Amino acid sequence: MSGNTFGTRFRVTTFGESHGPALGCVIDGVPAGLPVSAEMIRQELDRRRPGQSDVTTQRQESDAVEILSGVFNDVAEGTPLALLIRNGDQRSRDYGPLAEVFRPGHADLGYQKKFGIRDYRGGGRASGRETAARVAAGAVAKAFLHTLGVSVLAWTQEVAGISASAFDAGEIECNPMRSPDAKAAEAMHEAVLAARASGDSVGGIIACTVKGLPAGWGEPVFDKLDALLAHGILSIGAVKGIEFGDGFAAARAKGSTNNDAMTPDGFRSNHAGGVLGGISTGQELFFRTAFKPTPSIGMEQETIDLQGAPRTISIAGRHDPCIVPRAVPVVEAMTALVLADLALLQRCARCK
Amino acid sequence: MSGNTFGTRFRVTTFGESHGPALGCVIDGVPAGLPVSAEMIRQELDRRRPGQSDVTTQRQESDAVEILSGVFNDVAEGTPLALLIRNGDQRSRDYGPLAEVFRPGHADLGYQKKFGIRDYRGGGRASGRETAARVAAGAVAKAFLHTLGVSVLAWTQEVAGISASAFDAGEIECNPMRSPDAKAAEAMHEAVLAARASGDSVGGIIACTVKGLPAGWGEPVFDKLDALLAHGILSIGAVKGIEFGDGFAAARAKGSTNNDAMTPDGFRSNHAGGVLGGISTGQELFFRTAFKPTPSIGMEQETIDLQGAPRTISIAGRHDPCIVPRAVPVVEAMTALVLADLALLQRCARCK
Amino acid sequence: MSGNTFGTRFRVTTFGESHGPALGCVIDGVPAGLPVSAEMIRQELDRRRPGQSDVTTQRQESDAVEILSGVFNDVAEGTPLALLIRNGDQRSRDYGPLAEVFRPGHADLGYQKKFGIRDYRGGGRASGRETAARVAAGAVAKAFLHTLGVSVLAWTQEVAGISASAFDAGEIECNPMRSPDAKAAEAMHEAVLAARASGDSVGGIIACTVKGLPAGWGEPVFDKLDALLAHGILSIGAVKGIEFGDGFAAARAKGSTNNDAMTPDGFRSNHAGGVLGGISTGQELFFRTAFKPTPSIGMEQETIDLQGAPRTISIAGRHDPCIVPRAVPVVEAMTALVLADLALLQRCARCK
Amino acid sequence: MSGNTFGTRFRVTTFGESHGPALGCVIDGVPAGLPVSAEMIRQELDRRRPGQSDVTTQRQESDAVEILSGVFNDVAEGTPLALLIRNGDQRSRDYGPLAEVFRPGHADLGYQKKFGIRDYRGGGRASGRETAARVAAGAVAKAFLHTLGVSVLAWTQEVAGISASAFDAGEIECNPMRSPDAKAAEAMHEAVLAARASGDSVGGIIACTVKGLPAGWGEPVFDKLDALLAHGILSIGAVKGIEFGDGFAAARAKGSTNNDAMTPDGFRSNHAGGVLGGISTGQELFFRTAFKPTPSIGMEQETIDLQGAPRTISIAGRHDPCIVPRAVPVVEAMTALVLADLALLQRCARCK
Repeated sequence: MSGNTFGTRFRVTTFGESHGPALGCVIDGVPAGLPVSAEMIRQELDRRRPGQSDVTTQRQESDAVEILSGVFNDVAEGTPLALLIRNGDQRSRDYGPLAEVFRPGHADLGYQKKFGIRDYRGGGRASGRETAARVAAGAVAKAFLHTLGVSVLAWTQEVAGISASAFDAGEIECNPMRSPDAKAAEAMHEAVLAARASGDSVGGIIACTVKGLPAGWGEPVFDKLDALLAHGILSIGAVKGIEFGDGFAAARAKGSTNNDAMTPDGFRSNHAGGVLGGISTGQELFFRTAFKPTPSIGMEQETIDLQGAPRTISIAGRHDPCIVPRAVPVVEAMTALVLADLALLQRCARCK
Repeated sequence: MSGNTFGTRFRVTTFGESHGPALGCVIDGVPAGLPVSAEMIRQELDRRRPGQSDVTTQRQESDAVEILSGVFNDVAEGTPLALLIRNGDQRSRDYGPLAEVFRPGHADLGYQKKFGIRDYRGGGRASGRETAARVAAGAVAKAFLHTLGVSVLAWTQEVAGISASAFDAGEIECNPMRSPDAKAAEAMHEAVLAARASGDSVGGIIACTVKGLPAGWGEPVFDKLDALLAHGILSIGAVKGIEFGDGFAAARAKGSTNNDAMTPDGFRSNHAGGVLGGISTGQELFFRTAFKPTPSIGMEQETIDLQGAPRTISIAGRHDPCIVPRAVPVVEAMTALVLADLALLQRCARCK
Repeated sequence: MSGNTFGTRFRVTTFGESHGPALGCVIDGVPAGLPVSAEMIRQELDRRRPGQSDVTTQRQESDAVEILSGVFNDVAEGTPLALLIRNGDQRSRDYGPLAEVFRPGHADLGYQKKFGIRDYRGGGRASGRETAARVAAGAVAKAFLHTLGVSVLAWTQEVAGISASAFDAGEIECNPMRSPDAKAAEAMHEAVLAARASGDSVGGIIACTVKGLPAGWGEPVFDKLDALLAHGILSIGAVKGIEFGDGFAAARAKGSTNNDAMTPDGFRSNHAGGVLGGISTGQELFFRTAFKPTPSIGMEQETIDLQGAPRTISIAGRHDPCIVPRAVPVVEAMTALVLADLALLQRCARCK
Repeated sequence: MSGNTFGTRFRVTTFGESHGPALGCVIDGVPAGLPVSAEMIRQELDRRRPGQSDVTTQRQESDAVEILSGVFNDVAEGTPLALLIRNGDQRSRDYGPLAEVFRPGHADLGYQKKFGIRDYRGGGRASGRETAARVAAGAVAKAFLHTLGVSVLAWTQEVAGISASAFDAGEIECNPMRSPDAKAAEAMHEAVLAARASGDSVGGIIACTVKGLPAGWGEPVFDKLDALLAHGILSIGAVKGIEFGDGFAAARAKGSTNNDAMTPDGFRSNHAGGVLGGISTGQELFFRTAFKPTPSIGMEQETIDLQGAPRTISIAGRHDPCIVPRAVPVVEAMTALVLADLALLQRCARCK
């Protein structure tokens, strides 16, 4: 199938370029009877919104969402939900000079090679703005999961090499870094501002946990819980890796220490991150994912143009010096989309 | 869709439990005219075969493959290829005592919770034996990629914390660890034997590279090249993480150092690992993936039984003390399956 | 997958209820470089538009379409095309009394039983208005087929038992019945007006032909050309049957007369309708499809309400006494969607 | 997706050429706990088996089925069921002369044009033998539907223009025509023998009904109950049409007579055939489907060869002079596959 649809039964199709008229999504398979409102979607979009702090792009977008279909008397009616977000403050003129040049670290070259043409206005489809549609769809998925007692929480674990060591869930939305460690957040914040001041950018790591996840979700052997999450998370721009539970550290452990012993009162540890054999175990799900530094930087870079000739480029636009804080709700959204789908599929697992 | 099919156009469906009559796969979408032989599939299966060295299980399996359909006069005829591998040396009696107990670190609990029943003979569908079908299908995918000049190569990069530092591609198939560094291979080998001697197991890291990959493959925004690879690789049992290019290290880099500058002669570096915005750039693809230590160990472990009562378990069967060397062809196979599919889909990208 | 997506590679997802804010579609897989304009979509929508003659509903809809994404500098850029059609002249007040009653011949009961709730405003998702999104998507599919020399033409073959006997393609768009036989069109027209005058409705048969279709399109054994067309056409509301070539008459023929002999100059006949074994033969494709009479009628009918109590109903709204003429572009659209998809898939059939 | 997989959640992938080593299928999504046995599959295969009467081909096939996976302790374990049927009595030598010639009415030309090569041994993948895999899969689908109280029954309604007028369900399996009317069966039988005697063949019509079908099954707007059935049935070789309820006759009816009035005691009629708006109404499902006469006939026919030169052909092999009686279980199987899938999907329709 073409690549802009995600999920099997709870299924989202997204559309939209960063500087076209609009972006949005169609969510098919939302179970009938689920309460849905534009307000609950808006709350999630606000967490992703640009301009929310001094470490995000100052591009102003209202990101107002309109529900075009699928909701009647405030509940999902079983038909597709279409969500529309108009593009506002576009400043296309910023991007004219980029028509002929491939930005390093961006998808420009790939799109040109793939399609023979390229929408050079702000990255077009490859813009991070595309994730607004994911967040909108994820809000609906989260609402469905909420009816099942399942909740998704992500946060900034590390930025510019500075890692959160304390964990206070209540702190996450209280600092511009979305870190659960207020003190680390301050250091991260300074690192981001310093990078921007020097025309540079930084990356980081987002951690995500799911509480209330029942045992039994996941569709081996290919659509395993962790495989689908890896698919969903790696499909977010700028993500370069994912690890579940102890992840790469598990590769250095012994079986005797890495196995999570079971007792009548539950597991003694959670090295696995809540998934074994691609199926949830009933423990908390846990994974970490790596975001590279924003490729758009003010410093001068070496590149080529459409004709293959050498060029230098300095990207002057309004860009996030660190995308991590705004990516936190995107990670949650993709996680929720995977889980909502698996929740429905699990209803089909048994004969009775 | 149900979870035992992978791919869109070059599309494999696998089946089989470790102690049932057989396992195998159906590959739909193999382009007509591709030369296919049982011999070329057998060569790949031999690399995954148990009993190939003293660091693998001594279970003897011939893994003879039969092509049931789809090949006529030694070429693919455009119809589905069905590949059959009979299960041989099964020793089901080894597994009787496990019927009532959940093995730590295994999928046992998840399958029981998901389906209400469980095939406890050797892990059933969750056995590593399932990957034989992937390797068989991957051999066909590799043959197709070969016609396009694309080749996939994986190796053992690290075992038990011991990392390969030299790289000699010709060495990989010459030591039981499948390490490109003969000296590191010896140290890895000793570590594996030591783990087995103490009834324990170790994990490791596999690296994979793809040469000859054209720019333009990948189907954003969800079916990105790296997202599909993450899906495929994480669907292999025991995998706990994946990273592309610099991966998690990129999260600590600056944009100015992480971006790969372009020149008329090509890229100056490959921090990205050959993929940007989910589309291949024409550079070599590179990723690393983490395998946890084999969960089946001889040491005594704490667990529970079907009734939730406490039990201890010591797994006496013939198990790999380190699955990594045998997983190398599995990683190659999943990579080839993703690429064969994307190669076909790319034919549809443009109007003319 | 959820049921509002059609196609594999050229792939449309539709949304929208008849009395919600809007309807539309997302088309994924449109090959990059295809010229696309709102004008070419509008032309097709105008053929489906209500109020175009005295045999269609007098509901006024402008059916203006907005292209939200996927088009840059007037060509498809390889990313999803989202098409938006706002609902205008809705008169929801007409439908209030229907909230409690199931209309005979409509989907009301089924939706209630399926979802537990129902959007009773004008049929909601089950309204014929849903087909506007199909026609819009079909216009893009037609444009792609046009680049391949493939053209789709449908017409009203029969209404109220009155059949077209002459065939003048130029006549089809010149009479309100879309009949290729001007004289039969007049008789059909009178029959429709008579039915409406008596508070009743009539049905009919649409024929469809495809010229320029190359041999080799179709994906056996399940996604055969005729099987996919049957899927697409039967998914149009009010369709009760389809037949290819001689269709049901072939069931009464002998093999010796039904087989189409081949000569160096081509086939001697076309009883098959251009498809054998699910693959196009290079002949003209031909099928016929049956539309039932519009279920919304002014005459009093016996029915039940939500509580299962007996009720009578007379549907006073503005309805088409015969849906057939307006369904002609819908049949063309679904045909074009199937063919555009198969055209792309055929690019994957061979190794070289 | 490639075309040899059918269904979304209850999902079958078939493989096999008529003269290759074997054919079979993989059924993914069979709900765990369903009792499954080779015997219940064999019973259905016996109804499709060649050589069962003097109106079928005398090719002898045992059609023994082996369950390769997915069943443990006589119940489905939630993993894929692979079913294997070896090809036996092949007589490939019969088909040698056909390598260069396209048989009229067959898929030969299409396969050649599609794939550039063709398996000319007995039709290869396009052989009617392929339907054995469908019947085997259908047996499992029927078993699942049985647990829900849903049963599928098909029969020969018409052969060579001779129609059954009486209906005795108990008679269907008691005559070689599978007609519910013993007297009509005799006339049909004679017509078939006469056709064979003159080197010719005849076609016919199969009717199918489903009892116990709950209201609410079907996935609008594209995967409607009738659309999926049309897809499945038209994917059977030799089928040229399908109609639901009154079908083409409905196109000549008035709305006032075609609508099925509802009363507290149920519907007053069933012109719709049990489906409205693509969703089951709770009435009996009813459809009819047209089979063309067998294209393989002994009479001399005009055709061309691979080089396009004129040839004559007389097909001497052992062929069914009328495929209809053996197609009855195939129609049931495809119907059961559609319904099993929709039964599972309906579990996902509502939030709670």
